[in-house]
Amino acid sequence: MYKLYYWPEIQGRGEFVRLALEAAGAKYQDVARRAKGMDALIAGLKSDAPMPPYAPPYLQDGELVIAQTAAILAHLGPKLGLAPKDDAGRLHALQLQLTIADLVDEAHNTHHPVGSALYYEEQKKEAKRYTKNFRKLRIPKYLGYFERVLAANPQGPEHLVGDALSYADLSLFQVVEGLKYAFPKAAARELDTLPLVTALHQAVGRLPRIKAYMKSKRRIAFNEQGIFRRYPELDG
Amino acid sequence: MYKLYYWPEIQGRGEFVRLALEAAGAKYQDVARRAKGMDALIAGLKSDAPMPPYAPPYLQDGELVIAQTAAILAHLGPKLGLAPKDDAGRLHALQLQLTIADLVDEAHNTHHPVGSALYYEEQKKEAKRYTKNFRKLRIPKYLGYFERVLAANPQGPEHLVGDALSYADLSLFQVVEGLKYAFPKAAARELDTLPLVTALHQAVGRLPRIKAYMKSKRRIAFNEQGIFRRYPELDG
Repeated sequence: MYKLYYWPEIQGRGEFVRLALEAAGAKYQDVARRAKGMDALIAGLKSDAPMPPYAPPYLQDGELVIAQTAAILAHLGPKLGLAPKDDAGRLHALQLQLTIADLVDEAHNTHHPVGSALYYEEQKKEAKRYTKNFRKLRIPKYLGYFERVLAANPQGPEHLVGDALSYADLSLFQVVEGLKYAFPKAAARELDTLPLVTALHQAVGRLPRIKAYMKSKRRIAFNEQGIFRRYPELDG
Repeated sequence: MYKLYYWPEIQGRGEFVRLALEAAGAKYQDVARRAKGMDALIAGLKSDAPMPPYAPPYLQDGELVIAQTAAILAHLGPKLGLAPKDDAGRLHALQLQLTIADLVDEAHNTHHPVGSALYYEEQKKEAKRYTKNFRKLRIPKYLGYFERVLAANPQGPEHLVGDALSYADLSLFQVVEGLKYAFPKAAARELDTLPLVTALHQAVGRLPRIKAYMKSKRRIAFNEQGIFRRYPELDG
């Protein structure tokens, strides 16, 4: 039984871990969504035990506590059958996840360019400037890159790495979901030009376990506390 | 012979890789600093080969090309004797590197909060707002976290993870160097309260290979094109 510790009201970075656990049909507790779970999450952050997490998400797997989304997935991927079996493939899955994480950071900065300690309303003007650049340059550059990776995969364009579903595919699915939610116009315009990314997004959404998860209460809806936020003034 | 591809005029994210290679006395080429090296770097980014890098740094090790600083170090660490031998220790080294990478991203945003496509001069006002928060909240939170990690290491407070030098120690050294360069007042004030981080920084700086590297021409000086920039108006 895995225990995932993450903020209970948002998808956020924890969602990349949730999707891997769900896609594999793994047993897990989403601790902070249970009774007294937030106390447990905070206690873990303040722990004096060796190697505390800096921030959620963190995962407990038996004795091991591991933080940072990409490190959690580097650990879970092989155990859940969601990573390539060869060393190079595993490194490349990590490389892809880190590039997705960079995109996620920038998506967060669209509404919080000046600092996460301030409200969106205090940095709306800066958010507009940042997001204009994000829509025009960054979304095309990142999604175009993943299209290239798919096209260049010697095992076929159905997966980012190797010949089977990996956590990198799930994470790209999540990012596309997020961009479609936050920037429906910009995302649609871009995805129209990217058949392989679009096909991967659709294929992951059709996986029976992912389909069931998306309809369940375990999937928290996108909202304006998370990373991907729908502020119509930022789309275009 | 390793081949590192990174921008030739800055320390940037490539420096974390350079430090690991230097600390281990590994043979490597810093490709873009050699004749026609920039052409080779750009060709690698535009390559149609499987799994192209999204951005520098990337490393070539025989047939393997791997991008993303933390993934490069996850690969090099065990090969160079700069990572713990056990799986949990290796995951924790990766976790630490990713937390350092988050700090590095925020250090970059101090001078580019609105977007990396704009000049600093076009976002000076926003940079001041961002950096005030970075100095007052973020530097203390990050460096205080590493102090806690050192204090909680069951193998002793000389290293972040395990009982020997790892790439995470080298990367913390580099971040402290960067903060001292960019924010001399804020960094000194903070480090005064952090004896373990300070001791680790000094110990790494005294390692013979690191000492020799820092004096060599291979070490590019900090400058105002890199991640850590000294803009006196942002310190305080």
